[in-house]
Amino acid sequence: MTNRAATIIDGKMIAATIRQSIAGDVAALRTRGVLPGLAVILIGDDPASDIYVRNKIRACESVGIHSAEYRLPATVTQSAVDAFIDTLNADQSIHGILLQLPNPAHIDTRALINRINPAKDVDGLHPLNIGKLVSGAPDAMIPCTPQGALKLIQSVRTDLTGLHAIVLGRSILFGKPMAQLLLAQNCTVTTAHSKSRDLPALCAQADILVAAVGHAGMVKADWVKHGAIVIDVGINRRPDGTITGDVDYKSVVPRASAITPVPGGVGPMTIACLLANTVAAAQQITA
Amino acid sequence: MTNRAATIIDGKMIAATIRQSIAGDVAALRTRGVLPGLAVILIGDDPASDIYVRNKIRACESVGIHSAEYRLPATVTQSAVDAFIDTLNADQSIHGILLQLPNPAHIDTRALINRINPAKDVDGLHPLNIGKLVSGAPDAMIPCTPQGALKLIQSVRTDLTGLHAIVLGRSILFGKPMAQLLLAQNCTVTTAHSKSRDLPALCAQADILVAAVGHAGMVKADWVKHGAIVIDVGINRRPDGTITGDVDYKSVVPRASAITPVPGGVGPMTIACLLANTVAAAQQITA
Repeated sequence: MTNRAATIIDGKMIAATIRQSIAGDVAALRTRGVLPGLAVILIGDDPASDIYVRNKIRACESVGIHSAEYRLPATVTQSAVDAFIDTLNADQSIHGILLQLPNPAHIDTRALINRINPAKDVDGLHPLNIGKLVSGAPDAMIPCTPQGALKLIQSVRTDLTGLHAIVLGRSILFGKPMAQLLLAQNCTVTTAHSKSRDLPALCAQADILVAAVGHAGMVKADWVKHGAIVIDVGINRRPDGTITGDVDYKSVVPRASAITPVPGGVGPMTIACLLANTVAAAQQITA
Repeated sequence: MTNRAATIIDGKMIAATIRQSIAGDVAALRTRGVLPGLAVILIGDDPASDIYVRNKIRACESVGIHSAEYRLPATVTQSAVDAFIDTLNADQSIHGILLQLPNPAHIDTRALINRINPAKDVDGLHPLNIGKLVSGAPDAMIPCTPQGALKLIQSVRTDLTGLHAIVLGRSILFGKPMAQLLLAQNCTVTTAHSKSRDLPALCAQADILVAAVGHAGMVKADWVKHGAIVIDVGINRRPDGTITGDVDYKSVVPRASAITPVPGGVGPMTIACLLANTVAAAQQITA
């Protein structure tokens, strides 16, 4: 086994390229009188959510997408949010609706997501969009983070046929759609999670290892096959406020053929793909 | 390794038990004036489809479900079938609509499935139902064959937590929903397929091995871990007209802890689950 240094996948740079291309798409839409619009709904005042929402709004501005930020108090009732979503569903200036998660405990998040017009569901969380993704429909709205993670994998290897991809995590936001995307690329796909046994030996089989577990540094060097592509989706906050991933980066780098850093890997891609979904929604709705 | 004989999972008997319970549900519905109704659409005259449809109709009769069989000529146009589905969607005496597959080549099957009212989609193939299954919605309509296969697995082991399940096949009819059902049971789940590498070594890791590949006898003894539960979804027709599964049954039986035969394993469960879905649809629609 030669010990070539791993390619550090530069999510920031790849995201910037995508954003440039989106800016072009937005300009094209505007020449035919369509200004893509994204509505972001934030319930309550979670500080992390606040930062995420601000970043999303700023990203919209940077590519010329119209954005509207709606901040609702933590005490808002379900039916008030319902009515609000109905209004945005009908609003012709809005093509994408994003409900920032998590919500306060009294809110039924699933009911709100189900209420969003699937054509405007830029997070891809409506069951209709999940079902379209699984069945390979060309107009599926694909959740942003797995969509971005796939692009990062494809930046180092275009043909994934026959590779064994292991996804750690099975959330509807990430793990499940990620597995579907890799399956569509003809990977053998394993989904593992907190109830899985013997994770190190399992993960050591992966040609592509995608970690989305929310445990800082959980994936150690001996979990990683020599030459594997390692995608770190974790965003874990250290006591000092900096963030770190699910992969024990320093020890894993010498084994991987390619790896995403945290920060600067998957994170920037999520926002780029949100912009891409918003533009795609505007294109489809106004087609 | 002790060599206890494998449990032969009797799908016929388990299906009969389910059908008995369904007959009770149907009787309960009828006392409040609801007669569950299933419409089966068959386009063209594929002989195998003809047999399947006849079996389904007969099964409906046996539990007191009203059934209506619609045979359309192989030359029927897409728009004629569209109009036909619209009629059935609106028909209050029909709670389940089943489009027998495969269709003639000129028919856009996906468009027809997408047209079926999801509440009446007893095959569970509409994207909304697939998405509901993936996101764990309690009212998901679950495709019949994987639903039946899971019941067979649970007939020999109720708690599947942490077991490694490997599903061979990734169709929307079976492999994909099967993987989701096993994931919901807390299995580690691998989906493998025709592009997967080194299937024997991969499959030999499975605690639960589910084969749906459509190749007679492909799964050999050395693909099977000692003590594994083996579920054979294959229905391959021999030259003499009899059917055989995807598993090399004779050689695998001594290694498995439990195995389904073909015929008499998964097959009878598919029809039982179709009846169950029809009753569930009638219950939900008339609730």
